[in-house]
Amino acid sequence: MVAVIGYGFTRISEHWDKSLRELACESIQAALMNANMEKPEALFVGNMSGATVSGQQHLGALIADWCGFSGIEAYTIEAADASGAAAFRSAFLAIASGFIDTAVVCGVEQMTDVLPDYMTFATSLGSDYDYEVSCGITQTSLFALIARMYMQEFGAMREDLGMFAINSHRNAVANPFAIYRKEINIDTLLKSPMACDPLSVFDCSPVCDGSASVVLCSEKALKTNRAVRVIGSSVATDTMMIATRKDPLYLKSANDSSKRAYAMAKKKPEDIGLFELFDAYTILAAMQLEACGFANRGEGYLLARNNEIGIRGKIPICTMGGLKARGNPIGATGVYQIAEVTQQLLEEAGKNQVTCTTGMAQSIGGPGSTAVTHILEAV
Amino acid sequence: MVAVIGYGFTRISEHWDKSLRELACESIQAALMNANMEKPEALFVGNMSGATVSGQQHLGALIADWCGFSGIEAYTIEAADASGAAAFRSAFLAIASGFIDTAVVCGVEQMTDVLPDYMTFATSLGSDYDYEVSCGITQTSLFALIARMYMQEFGAMREDLGMFAINSHRNAVANPFAIYRKEINIDTLLKSPMACDPLSVFDCSPVCDGSASVVLCSEKALKTNRAVRVIGSSVATDTMMIATRKDPLYLKSANDSSKRAYAMAKKKPEDIGLFELFDAYTILAAMQLEACGFANRGEGYLLARNNEIGIRGKIPICTMGGLKARGNPIGATGVYQIAEVTQQLLEEAGKNQVTCTTGMAQSIGGPGSTAVTHILEAV
Repeated sequence: MVAVIGYGFTRISEHWDKSLRELACESIQAALMNANMEKPEALFVGNMSGATVSGQQHLGALIADWCGFSGIEAYTIEAADASGAAAFRSAFLAIASGFIDTAVVCGVEQMTDVLPDYMTFATSLGSDYDYEVSCGITQTSLFALIARMYMQEFGAMREDLGMFAINSHRNAVANPFAIYRKEINIDTLLKSPMACDPLSVFDCSPVCDGSASVVLCSEKALKTNRAVRVIGSSVATDTMMIATRKDPLYLKSANDSSKRAYAMAKKKPEDIGLFELFDAYTILAAMQLEACGFANRGEGYLLARNNEIGIRGKIPICTMGGLKARGNPIGATGVYQIAEVTQQLLEEAGKNQVTCTTGMAQSIGGPGSTAVTHILEAV
Repeated sequence: MVAVIGYGFTRISEHWDKSLRELACESIQAALMNANMEKPEALFVGNMSGATVSGQQHLGALIADWCGFSGIEAYTIEAADASGAAAFRSAFLAIASGFIDTAVVCGVEQMTDVLPDYMTFATSLGSDYDYEVSCGITQTSLFALIARMYMQEFGAMREDLGMFAINSHRNAVANPFAIYRKEINIDTLLKSPMACDPLSVFDCSPVCDGSASVVLCSEKALKTNRAVRVIGSSVATDTMMIATRKDPLYLKSANDSSKRAYAMAKKKPEDIGLFELFDAYTILAAMQLEACGFANRGEGYLLARNNEIGIRGKIPICTMGGLKARGNPIGATGVYQIAEVTQQLLEEAGKNQVTCTTGMAQSIGGPGSTAVTHILEAV
């Protein structure tokens, strides 16, 4: 049995005054204090853009040293946008092995202190460089292509997809760590500039700086009732290019990964009380709901249209603001998601509290090329 | 029990005609054929410089896709120069957890197709950027400082350290995958240009392109006698900067990591039949021999001077050419080391065969900030 016993966040923002290691250390210390632990046996870092944006790799040793843990086991796990979730997966397996009893998973990203063009380049390195990025394709343009095809195929309107952004903004208001704590309405979205047609800037999550950490421990090391259990854990990949997929509107990685996680947890979609999904783009939210069994194919957007994704809805998503309004510090985001599920299951989510005992988090790397799913349950 | 049942290499060279994914796929296919396996459940990639040199991250999904394994679990592990060894550690823990039965660990690096200055920058990202690299310090200059101090403190001569390079070159002659299959003598080294005084270019390993893979499996999935067991596995970190260490001549990470690996394996240094150490610089070989208990403090270089590191010596090191002559494709190197230990324990090392049943590999990230140790034993 692997348990999560603490979490910590830095506020998501443009932290031009804080370095990568400072952001990381802030959330690690918060998580350890939250878990009432002084020092973990191991540190698993989720990060994507240290090398390109900060000129810094080897974050395991760097952050362990900066936190005063020099000596412990530490390294970085990278799976593009899903890096944080993949780091959690690694820590889960490490503790399940019996060789490690306590670990911190720290997702961290310091992205904004560069020119916007360079940031677009850095975030695109999760797509295929030789065949896509070198031709000028960016993450946003790939999801815009998918969104256009989805709208034509299934009759979804921009207003429908926009409901995902509205929900995330509504939920972020009460989250002190969110970057945008302000509600928006559909007019805001429809009148906002296009990022890449048909996705407006309000359909896209903001790239920003932040760090989240969680503390994991083995059954042997568990000394508290304030804990949640990891009952499902899975990583699945898909092709790098959407051009080589039979059906670009079907998130095969998300489907495979969720199916394996459900099987491990002995749960079905209807058992999941809340779903922290990866609304990097509004279209991705619709597709994930379908891939993970919460809606039929081509009907994911109807859950938003029919108001079933709110805190009191049929399947609450992005309960603390999601990537759209809490913010999307790329490699750190997966840990924010898992930390928020933990917060909810510990009934510490304040105004946004969802009443449930089982929650799921899923992160998506690149254009659906990696999906990492975790299911957590209250003890 | 975790077993290694196959290995594969690409020849180390300047592969300007091959991309990162092609190099990786070559060694993965060779390792799978060697292990008589078609497809693993998971792929763990060790790589450091994909982002900076090739503009490509998300190598787990990319390489899995290119090999035709799209769908499996896959991600990248990074710990600077020790990335390949850290990826092996992750795979070991994953299989030990019982959740994964078969895995490939692929170390891959495509470094040389850039300007030399940029390569120096890319390889320095394992050191502290804010406090060291931004001031112009490189990996080589750090180890030159250490070497100068070591020589003054312990009376080692350039000729003594040079013996490590001579040994590696001698062993590389019979290795078809090595970049430099040519013996050198002490005159070659002493007359060669300085890389950074007192380290000549022959004291430094060449940064190059290459990929090595190994296949791991659980006891349940083991269907052959042609296997070696992983009996020790450990990662330890130290401070990022040598300036903050009490004793810059003591590799604390290597000491911690080897001690934990010995304890897990229930072995002592004298039980180790061969040691694939990390001779990125000749000075590092001397220090690792001391840190891992093969020589007293300040006496590691004497093992080289007294000819005790050769194939028939007291502690054979770098038996297939080491980093110096087999080559050092940074993030891939740790997997070359472990694959070579496997090759030796399976008695498939040809002219360089060492007679022993237990071998050790240790990789060093940055200026000794990470050390990853594995001990393998013949079945």
